[in-house]
Amino acid sequence: MSSDHKTGLQLRSLIKKSGELELSLAEVAKPEPDADEVVVRVEASPINPSDLGLLVGAADMSTAKASGTKDSPVITAKVPEAAMNAMAGRLDESMPVGNEGAGVVVKTGSSDAAKALMGKTVAMIGGAMYSQYRCLRVSECLPLPAGITPAEGASCFVNPLTALGMMLNKICLKDGISLVNIVRSPEQAEILRKIGAKHVVDSTSPTFMDDLTNALVETGATLAFDAIGGGKLAGQILTCMEIAANRSAKVYSRYGSSVHKQVYIYGALDPRPIELNRAFGMAWGVGGWLLTPFLQKIGPAEIARLRQRVVSELKTTFASHYTQVVSLQEALQLNHIAVYAKRATGEKYLVNPNKGR
Amino acid sequence: MSSDHKTGLQLRSLIKKSGELELSLAEVAKPEPDADEVVVRVEASPINPSDLGLLVGAADMSTAKASGTKDSPVITAKVPEAAMNAMAGRLDESMPVGNEGAGVVVKTGSSDAAKALMGKTVAMIGGAMYSQYRCLRVSECLPLPAGITPAEGASCFVNPLTALGMMLNKICLKDGISLVNIVRSPEQAEILRKIGAKHVVDSTSPTFMDDLTNALVETGATLAFDAIGGGKLAGQILTCMEIAANRSAKVYSRYGSSVHKQVYIYGALDPRPIELNRAFGMAWGVGGWLLTPFLQKIGPAEIARLRQRVVSELKTTFASHYTQVVSLQEALQLNHIAVYAKRATGEKYLVNPNKGR
Repeated sequence: MSSDHKTGLQLRSLIKKSGELELSLAEVAKPEPDADEVVVRVEASPINPSDLGLLVGAADMSTAKASGTKDSPVITAKVPEAAMNAMAGRLDESMPVGNEGAGVVVKTGSSDAAKALMGKTVAMIGGAMYSQYRCLRVSECLPLPAGITPAEGASCFVNPLTALGMMLNKICLKDGISLVNIVRSPEQAEILRKIGAKHVVDSTSPTFMDDLTNALVETGATLAFDAIGGGKLAGQILTCMEIAANRSAKVYSRYGSSVHKQVYIYGALDPRPIELNRAFGMAWGVGGWLLTPFLQKIGPAEIARLRQRVVSELKTTFASHYTQVVSLQEALQLNHIAVYAKRATGEKYLVNPNKGR
Repeated sequence: MSSDHKTGLQLRSLIKKSGELELSLAEVAKPEPDADEVVVRVEASPINPSDLGLLVGAADMSTAKASGTKDSPVITAKVPEAAMNAMAGRLDESMPVGNEGAGVVVKTGSSDAAKALMGKTVAMIGGAMYSQYRCLRVSECLPLPAGITPAEGASCFVNPLTALGMMLNKICLKDGISLVNIVRSPEQAEILRKIGAKHVVDSTSPTFMDDLTNALVETGATLAFDAIGGGKLAGQILTCMEIAANRSAKVYSRYGSSVHKQVYIYGALDPRPIELNRAFGMAWGVGGWLLTPFLQKIGPAEIARLRQRVVSELKTTFASHYTQVVSLQEALQLNHIAVYAKRATGEKYLVNPNKGR
């Protein structure tokens, strides 16, 4: 197959000290696997919000301009002065992008474990997936069952493991765990109800605090995951949890309920500061939540169990839906960037670095 | 000794549904110990901020009025309407007060362990210490070594165990642990420097953020205990910890440093909402901190170790200094209430329920 190619393309993101973002395709040598490694021809890699953060960084994509050629496009855009501080750690460094993906093993190292993967479709996590070839250790590959395509296996890690880590709606439904969904519009509430969500409350409703308290009394939930971050939401959740806990409390304690109430913040849809009004006693916590530290904490055995669950439910619970499949060159076209950089619900891109090759 | 008395006085705090606080002395029967219990004649019990919270609750003590007699004083004060919600759990319930104290065992149950304590000076925690007699289980008594008076042993628990839990200045100095002290005035900074504190930063200084960052680089501290609570301080601490962590970081991560940064909030000197600006990556936590859940978490063996340390350092590290020793009646005099309800640094009261008896 593509074993004739001596090189492969790799998408790169560079933010220069001058305040300019540059996206381009680098031609890199096809990697040579060590004994315990394999080379994968990447055929599918999603563009997740976590990828966009590295891909475009703090650049203002409304200033994006295209140059270069059709085969080797270049995109440039301005990074606002005020945002350059936050980019200090990556300046003048050409960085590969793409957290996860799937493809076919086209070359292997000399170990038996590596050889056993030859020709197999595998899922991968580890960065640099917007590349035509990706070399990685056997232990980093998740072999997919027969009948699963690279496109179907492209999103095995980031979203499924995050959702499992937090136990989101479809998983809670399947496992019979009570979940309260908080959304920011009647339309979003409707979408969730249609896929079977039982408790959906709308933070824009005038009865939000009462609705949330009632749902928390009914479910007993004391753990929340918050993608909004800024504003009063985290404090409102803790306040309603405290009211719910005190409805069943037998003894007065001036420090509030002894039930620990926790909100993990994993996104920043609202960039304002988090405001906590402290109407929820002393048994509370608010903190950041990221997938990688979570996985480090639960350890290899539990990770393996979660991965196995993802693989076995790839066509059901964890099926991803993509609205576009693009090549590396297409990923650097302004018309596509304008769509995927919006991170809109219902628009999801898949990169196939070997599309049309 | 006082075994002639059939009854003893007990200080009570009552908040009525009508919005009135009433402090009074109740005459209660001298308790009869069960086999494994002892009766202690309480001779010393401090007035800590945690006691004031229960004693005066949300009442506005500027409205306090005295009535009753010299032997049986009564204090009344108004609870502001807006604060009555927070008092809902204790309305119309006459509550004893006083978290900890020390005294002499004057009567025991029939068990050998109880009998062994007869005449001994013991420290106690468990509430209702502003009482002339307190009955409790042998296991709840901490026998004090010969040469320790009830006044010296009155504060064995709340402040020493809280300080040990957080490892505050004197303990850190003794144990060689790097500590950064944050204060709110040059005067407070001076007090701490005089008792040997190495890193003291003043949050009212224009160079606060730089001073704090430098102290955090020098100490490597990633854990903070915050008595202020409201406003920006907790977020500023996390921000400086993040800057300090990134000074030594080798690899760029757009999620910020992977070093977990934690602020525990154990007080509310500033009643405004907590404002977190989120300039500190994703590896962070903010949460409430209380002594009792902390002790439950570390378990009996570790608690015993901490208690033993307190007892052996009662005259040095954990020595408490009281500016006034008052009887139960004196504790209900307006001139004394005006002083101890201020919670001012340098003014600390000790109640001796058997003073002058």
